[in-house]
Amino acid sequence: MLTQPEAYYDADTFARMKAAADQHDTPVLIVDTKTFSEQLDHLMGCFPYAKTYYAVKANPEPEVLTILRDRGCNFDVASRYELDKVMALGVTGDRFSFGNTIKKLKDISYFYEKGVRLFATDSEADLRNIAEAAPGAKVFVRILTEGSQTADWPLSRKFGCHVDMALDLCIMARELGLVPYGISFHVGSQQRDIGAWDSAIAKAKGIFDRLKDEENIELKMLNVGGGFPANYVSRTNPLETYAEEITRFLKEDFGDDLPDIILEPGRSLAANAGILVSEVILVSRKNRTGIERWVYTDIGKFGGFIETLDEAIKYPLYIEKESDEFEEVIIAGPTCDSADILYEQYKYELPLNLAAGDRMYWFSTGAYTTTYSAIEFNGFPPLKTVCI
Amino acid sequence: MLTQPEAYYDADTFARMKAAADQHDTPVLIVDTKTFSEQLDHLMGCFPYAKTYYAVKANPEPEVLTILRDRGCNFDVASRYELDKVMALGVTGDRFSFGNTIKKLKDISYFYEKGVRLFATDSEADLRNIAEAAPGAKVFVRILTEGSQTADWPLSRKFGCHVDMALDLCIMARELGLVPYGISFHVGSQQRDIGAWDSAIAKAKGIFDRLKDEENIELKMLNVGGGFPANYVSRTNPLETYAEEITRFLKEDFGDDLPDIILEPGRSLAANAGILVSEVILVSRKNRTGIERWVYTDIGKFGGFIETLDEAIKYPLYIEKESDEFEEVIIAGPTCDSADILYEQYKYELPLNLAAGDRMYWFSTGAYTTTYSAIEFNGFPPLKTVCI
Repeated sequence: MLTQPEAYYDADTFARMKAAADQHDTPVLIVDTKTFSEQLDHLMGCFPYAKTYYAVKANPEPEVLTILRDRGCNFDVASRYELDKVMALGVTGDRFSFGNTIKKLKDISYFYEKGVRLFATDSEADLRNIAEAAPGAKVFVRILTEGSQTADWPLSRKFGCHVDMALDLCIMARELGLVPYGISFHVGSQQRDIGAWDSAIAKAKGIFDRLKDEENIELKMLNVGGGFPANYVSRTNPLETYAEEITRFLKEDFGDDLPDIILEPGRSLAANAGILVSEVILVSRKNRTGIERWVYTDIGKFGGFIETLDEAIKYPLYIEKESDEFEEVIIAGPTCDSADILYEQYKYELPLNLAAGDRMYWFSTGAYTTTYSAIEFNGFPPLKTVCI
Repeated sequence: MLTQPEAYYDADTFARMKAAADQHDTPVLIVDTKTFSEQLDHLMGCFPYAKTYYAVKANPEPEVLTILRDRGCNFDVASRYELDKVMALGVTGDRFSFGNTIKKLKDISYFYEKGVRLFATDSEADLRNIAEAAPGAKVFVRILTEGSQTADWPLSRKFGCHVDMALDLCIMARELGLVPYGISFHVGSQQRDIGAWDSAIAKAKGIFDRLKDEENIELKMLNVGGGFPANYVSRTNPLETYAEEITRFLKEDFGDDLPDIILEPGRSLAANAGILVSEVILVSRKNRTGIERWVYTDIGKFGGFIETLDEAIKYPLYIEKESDEFEEVIIAGPTCDSADILYEQYKYELPLNLAAGDRMYWFSTGAYTTTYSAIEFNGFPPLKTVCI
């Protein structure tokens, strides 16, 4: 059975987004700013004590960034290009965190000149660069966490350091004239196991205590990252449950005297605000008696659906076609690359009367799609976004 | 041990490419048009009886396309955008093949209006579209082949049909007023087993014979695809050996009266002509006693090295640094995405004194890199190309 719109959007919202898509050739991503605003309100309401640093990489459309700017949010940026993009909207340097632990010395200088004073780190080499190019800045150390088995898009392998290194880096930060400001972690994007925050918060608390007791260093901030869920095919707990549990974990470990808590939401704000509309190009079988039907559409893995790699993210799919019969299919993209198959293990059941030209509505596609599309893979232009 | 330049380039060529790279910030891809021309001469010399249809998607730089235009080559294109790009250089429609079997009706019309009369197909739905939008055109049917176990970038799952369907499509093409013109296959990109061509050619010959005997349809063309090797870490036979063997297979099956033979080289022409130069951003360990050293560089999986997915393609890597000590490392890209790890299973041994700012020379990177880089992944701009 196909996904129905009402399971993901209220009737007005879907009608508005569909009407916008009707004005455009496919593929196109429709981003509904009203939905984005509602997601933001909801998140901020769930975590009234926290500061929000939006993960710009999730969706850097100016209309989206403007909403965040006007709500007084802060921004977590991965590169100088993202910094420029947000500052072009009038946001000042004190509202940024340079969250990428992999950065060039000259980029640190660039951020410092623009007024940014908050930097993530997880290695000695990077910390020394920060001390050189951003003297006196606040640094927070990203620690490794578990949780990669239960996140749909794991993040824990490449970033962060172990506890011993985190202690060393905080001590060294002070020696280098920086402010050892806090600890951060990221339990993985689209993390389905809320318990992942529990152990990460406990680990951070241990670092807070040891630094205070042994080194008289008082950390001020805990960055609990992102990882809050969007609504894909695999359902998760509602955000309220995440918030209640994470708040409980924080109070259990830190008591009522919480450090400054930072959130880095990206996917949970942007995903549900987007519907990507593609078109069926072809439906075919490979031989006369072929069991498998292949559906080729004009959005592919390298045109915006990079997160279908290993079928990690399964987007809810709606097709507006009456049919009594459905069949499992393989869904593939439009390019001359065999890797450009979206779903082969996970089988979507699509109408048997599906035909070229039918539109496919991919829900919850507002995050990690457009900016990731290739500049001209097989000649195809990058995915277009329309904000409404 | 590190790769040495002389194993891949003559001294003049490497010096010329390195000097060009020295003028630019990293990451940058240097494409040497002289090397490309030599690769083209070499291929055409090895297959004097064949027509070359360059796979534009491998590298669509105008300087490269111009060389092909001036040598009288033809072009295999995957989209209308690639068609426009080559036609802008003054190439006429009769020198193209629309090689993508997944195409919209309106795109077929577009090609037809531009004078293109040669189309690949592998399904009934597509064939009917061609008949409607490109009446009287020549079609060739792509068949499925084995060989995915021995190709570094397999292509056989998504494209092509079985023999029974190929027969049906050729017969149907005639009924629809099209010219059933030939058969094509692709044994997979960077195919290391030359025997893959043997079975594919034999399969095609069977189709030629049955259509002639049973249906009085005389096919005129055999498209043996691409798949010829570039020089990566995993070595292959030289191109001469490929050419001798493929020629022998053709003569064994077709005798002296060969059909028109089409080649679709891409990687084998463009890869070796490119050297991608990146810079070390950071070298770090995850804890005090960490065994694994991580090297982060400013080129990543989504910035042009998409073919490092599953570590499929291993590029030869040269670093100009004197050292007596080397150590196995994990190499990762610059973005805030844990999937952006280039090589973790395959271990490059890099100098122990490697440091931020050192340049990394990735050889044989002229194919399937630039056009595949993301439009603004984490804000980073697409990979820059400099043709010399």
